[in-house]
Amino acid sequence: MQPLRVALDDRAYDIHIGTGLLDDVAPILPFVKKAGVAVVTNETVAPLYLSRLAAALRQAGVAVIEIVLPDGEAYKDWPTLNRIFDVLLEQHAERSTTLIALGGGVIGDMTGFAAACYQRGVPFIQIPTTLLSQVDSSVGGKTAINHPRGKNMIGAFYQPKLVLADLDTLDTLPDRELAAGLAEVIKYGLIRDPEFLVWLEANMTRLLARDKGALAYAVRRSCEHKAEVVAADEKEAGERALLNLGHTFGHAIETGLGYGEWLHGEAVAAGTMMAAELSRRLGWLGESDVQRIEALFRAAGLPVCGPDLGAERYLELMSHDKKVQDGRLRLVLLERLGRAVLSDAAPEAEIRAAIAARVAA
Amino acid sequence: MQPLRVALDDRAYDIHIGTGLLDDVAPILPFVKKAGVAVVTNETVAPLYLSRLAAALRQAGVAVIEIVLPDGEAYKDWPTLNRIFDVLLEQHAERSTTLIALGGGVIGDMTGFAAACYQRGVPFIQIPTTLLSQVDSSVGGKTAINHPRGKNMIGAFYQPKLVLADLDTLDTLPDRELAAGLAEVIKYGLIRDPEFLVWLEANMTRLLARDKGALAYAVRRSCEHKAEVVAADEKEAGERALLNLGHTFGHAIETGLGYGEWLHGEAVAAGTMMAAELSRRLGWLGESDVQRIEALFRAAGLPVCGPDLGAERYLELMSHDKKVQDGRLRLVLLERLGRAVLSDAAPEAEIRAAIAARVAA
Repeated sequence: MQPLRVALDDRAYDIHIGTGLLDDVAPILPFVKKAGVAVVTNETVAPLYLSRLAAALRQAGVAVIEIVLPDGEAYKDWPTLNRIFDVLLEQHAERSTTLIALGGGVIGDMTGFAAACYQRGVPFIQIPTTLLSQVDSSVGGKTAINHPRGKNMIGAFYQPKLVLADLDTLDTLPDRELAAGLAEVIKYGLIRDPEFLVWLEANMTRLLARDKGALAYAVRRSCEHKAEVVAADEKEAGERALLNLGHTFGHAIETGLGYGEWLHGEAVAAGTMMAAELSRRLGWLGESDVQRIEALFRAAGLPVCGPDLGAERYLELMSHDKKVQDGRLRLVLLERLGRAVLSDAAPEAEIRAAIAARVAA
Repeated sequence: MQPLRVALDDRAYDIHIGTGLLDDVAPILPFVKKAGVAVVTNETVAPLYLSRLAAALRQAGVAVIEIVLPDGEAYKDWPTLNRIFDVLLEQHAERSTTLIALGGGVIGDMTGFAAACYQRGVPFIQIPTTLLSQVDSSVGGKTAINHPRGKNMIGAFYQPKLVLADLDTLDTLPDRELAAGLAEVIKYGLIRDPEFLVWLEANMTRLLARDKGALAYAVRRSCEHKAEVVAADEKEAGERALLNLGHTFGHAIETGLGYGEWLHGEAVAAGTMMAAELSRRLGWLGESDVQRIEALFRAAGLPVCGPDLGAERYLELMSHDKKVQDGRLRLVLLERLGRAVLSDAAPEAEIRAAIAARVAA
């Protein structure tokens, strides 16, 4: 398949989507200098794919440092990030050493942030191995770690040189992770592509059965949307914020429960239902629209209600959101299915009511 | 005085140099949004200047968060940086909150890095209150914290929106800090301005007596050089590295002794003598050139020898330098007085000998 291009002038890059990509390091080599690479992965992904990738790179004459971190959102923190720096310094990694993220969203976000900061910036490459990271987090250069008070609060906009999405890696993905990735796929339909929404409704069974053709289409369509939005608004001054449908509520769930309790995609699904409920209360969505969204999330095996943290706790956690402006919470809402808007129009009482309507009893 | 411009396209900014700047917040206001500012300073500078600056800002209707950190290079680390993030989140600082660094190089580097990372980037302003930060670190967007294995290893290139260098703040600077700043002033003469070197030799007494006219000239001339180099090579792909004369040896001194034992400028002075000695051994400088450099540092009250860590320890510490390429150490050396070069020409034995010749017995 022809690679997709993220059009960002001197920081433009390709996204390769396909099968068997892990064994073919040819696309990687143009971005590797004599100093070699450091592959960052986690304890779950390492036994599956690290030795294969490292062997292929060494075969091509590339020096490889291997960094294996513990797995999970709970480790997307400073001490774990610092382990990357420790190894890079111990191993004398240079300013021209290329970091490679091999894993899901947590590994991608942390490796990208490490690349942004190590010696004030080294090149990096994303090799996402989960559906969520293939369709969303590996593209667009958002990197970060979490802070106890807020998710992704410490980070950088720092673009990769290349993204390699090998669909074969989805074969080893647990069902729960596959579903979590589908939450972000469904998001693209909801915010900007009603036809894709129809396709997803018709093909959810194929996706859950990991049909390669269906997955290839869903990943490519999602990446096309992501690339288009990022090229238009890299630093999230406008349109890019719409990609955060359900994320303000979702981040509150993740932070409120403790990172790692819910998967990011699960929190986004429940958060999207809250945003949909709020959009209905504002008169933008009909009851049947909300039901249609709920049915699609349910079909994907995703939660459609958040945990009962109490509306006050939700609001407190949401007050740290990066979209807060002049003290006012701005939320991504749906004007209709396939069209999102960033709005501060919702009265606090309605936000409270939407949360209350969408928490599990 | 007319402000100096750092010509960096959409990231261009002005450097104001003069007296009484702290009471006039007019140049700051264009860079402040409704979310206000967070002023980051330290326990030494706060009692001198914080309430004055904060009062002037509040007078102008700006909301001010005050963040006071412990003083010293030893605190240029992650836990202290994280205190900035803690307060910003507690106080609900937003993506449009402007960070203001009020202090020396450590405060400037840390505040700049905090601004680069908080919510993936917020605006920031430098108000340097030491000679060293006025002539060097506040200009050019290098931000960082230290790692136990290497100075400034974790950071970002992130430009300020404005630099305000108020010469009045130098009145309260301890003598030792004034001298440390002069090391970086002398550096500009050594690497690119032989006439300035002659001026410094003739005016060192006036500078040490804190003659405002002499200081104004020295700060402005230094900032002109810095602005020119940064505009030509923001990310240090070439010429900018020459600003690091004496820094590879100097960082080894700082890291080897423990951060804060020597001031940065002191380490740079001793490191520059090692670089000069090495340049002499390569046949580039004459004995009289080396003596002339030594005399100027001595006149400024700066050390001209490093601590005796052992040459091996120096080399180990220097091996983490950001200028290492393909495993080879590259050093800034002097081809002649007023002309620096980045070179890997020095054999290790000569580097060892230069260190040995310039450590205190």
